[in-house]
Amino acid sequence: MNLETWRSFTPEQARTTIRNGHTGTTSGWSDGWAQANLLAVPREQAFDLMLFAQRNPKPCPLLDVFDPGARSSSRFKGDITTDVPAYRIYERGTLVAEETDVSGLWRDDLVAFLFGCSFSFERALIEAGIDMRHNAAGTTVPMYRTTIDCEPAGMFASSTVVSMRGVPADRVPDTVRICARYPAVHGAPVHVGDPGLIGITDLDKPDWGDPPVLREGDVPVFWACGVTPQAMVMQSRPEFAIAHAPGRMAITDIRESELITP
Amino acid sequence: MNLETWRSFTPEQARTTIRNGHTGTTSGWSDGWAQANLLAVPREQAFDLMLFAQRNPKPCPLLDVFDPGARSSSRFKGDITTDVPAYRIYERGTLVAEETDVSGLWRDDLVAFLFGCSFSFERALIEAGIDMRHNAAGTTVPMYRTTIDCEPAGMFASSTVVSMRGVPADRVPDTVRICARYPAVHGAPVHVGDPGLIGITDLDKPDWGDPPVLREGDVPVFWACGVTPQAMVMQSRPEFAIAHAPGRMAITDIRESELITP
Repeated sequence: MNLETWRSFTPEQARTTIRNGHTGTTSGWSDGWAQANLLAVPREQAFDLMLFAQRNPKPCPLLDVFDPGARSSSRFKGDITTDVPAYRIYERGTLVAEETDVSGLWRDDLVAFLFGCSFSFERALIEAGIDMRHNAAGTTVPMYRTTIDCEPAGMFASSTVVSMRGVPADRVPDTVRICARYPAVHGAPVHVGDPGLIGITDLDKPDWGDPPVLREGDVPVFWACGVTPQAMVMQSRPEFAIAHAPGRMAITDIRESELITP
Repeated sequence: MNLETWRSFTPEQARTTIRNGHTGTTSGWSDGWAQANLLAVPREQAFDLMLFAQRNPKPCPLLDVFDPGARSSSRFKGDITTDVPAYRIYERGTLVAEETDVSGLWRDDLVAFLFGCSFSFERALIEAGIDMRHNAAGTTVPMYRTTIDCEPAGMFASSTVVSMRGVPADRVPDTVRICARYPAVHGAPVHVGDPGLIGITDLDKPDWGDPPVLREGDVPVFWACGVTPQAMVMQSRPEFAIAHAPGRMAITDIRESELITP
């Protein structure tokens, strides 16, 4: 199978392929369907996480929250414990394992949260003729810790993690305008220009992902990033958490067209 | 004082006036600032309520959620136990009292939820030349129980309560277009036309508010309504809840202009 096949998959076909052994990225899969960041925490911490998401909608835009213990929902009709290519397991904020199936680790008190993913706004930008440099280079978008604090909630606090994409100066306004219409997938950028102003000392050394690809005349543009919930887990150390591995997302039954504001 | 004075109040001035004894409606107060529906429930039920709001954003658009026990927040800088003109107290789903001050009833485990209010989209419609019939008549907008079920969450279930406004047939498209840009205050209407299709048998007998005011050529237009959380309390019977009295809202520090989608 190749990208053209993956691109045309229904969410159900994509999830079946993943369940049957695909462990790589889901970038480009299931055109037109929203992909999501996963974070599952025990019911005991779920109210605080929901409050954190409510207060920080740019890094944590909620697409769906499952019932406690549930492995699926009306917006994700697969099995969340087998249908994500790879998972990260955290105990008291420490990454202890990476797994491709967490059906044996799932607990009756775990609450799965799905957060919007930048793949959706990237597609909208590409359609508008704004290239994604990291796609052409075959790399993962660079992500950085910043000095932009999230609003804390209960036990949870974190700085905002951002992703960075280089955009030609004359396309920056279109980039902002287009992304602003997608609040459910991080929305408008949070910063344009000088990385030092948000605490990034060396653009070439991201905290996650690959070094940036910038062309002559590109302005660095920064978006709140779905890795923020994992940074929050590392900082706030809940007893247990399961997240997706970067780039290996949950493919939902939500159409991207539903995520555009009127 | 008159409506022109109230209209020009800052949120702080409005809350002080209410704290000092105003017990009537807040319709028309603090032009440009969002007013909100209040529902406070114990921490034990707060996750379920948050899940209910997440799954039913049209009747329950979340503007803010306070920390457990808190009486204020960054988006409501007053005292939520004294700065709403009148409160309704529910015990196991039964309305047991109406009070003008609940500072003595507040508990350390109560979580206050603020939901968007139709006053905000009404102002936008009036600015577009779409009259609010009930304002001219000096009545309260009619509200109805419907057969449109909310998606349940944990202990909470409810049918959707709707408000109804008569709109000239040629202004219905503008009405939908304008309201769709305000998802945080109920958003686009949920139904246009025949009330029978959503289980309303007699338009002249609303479940809350006053009988409708319709002019020749008006189409009945229905919006999801902020009374839905109180209907949910009556149906699902949490141990304890405090809500605002209809039309007597919490005046927030959120600018209405922040609620418009890009």
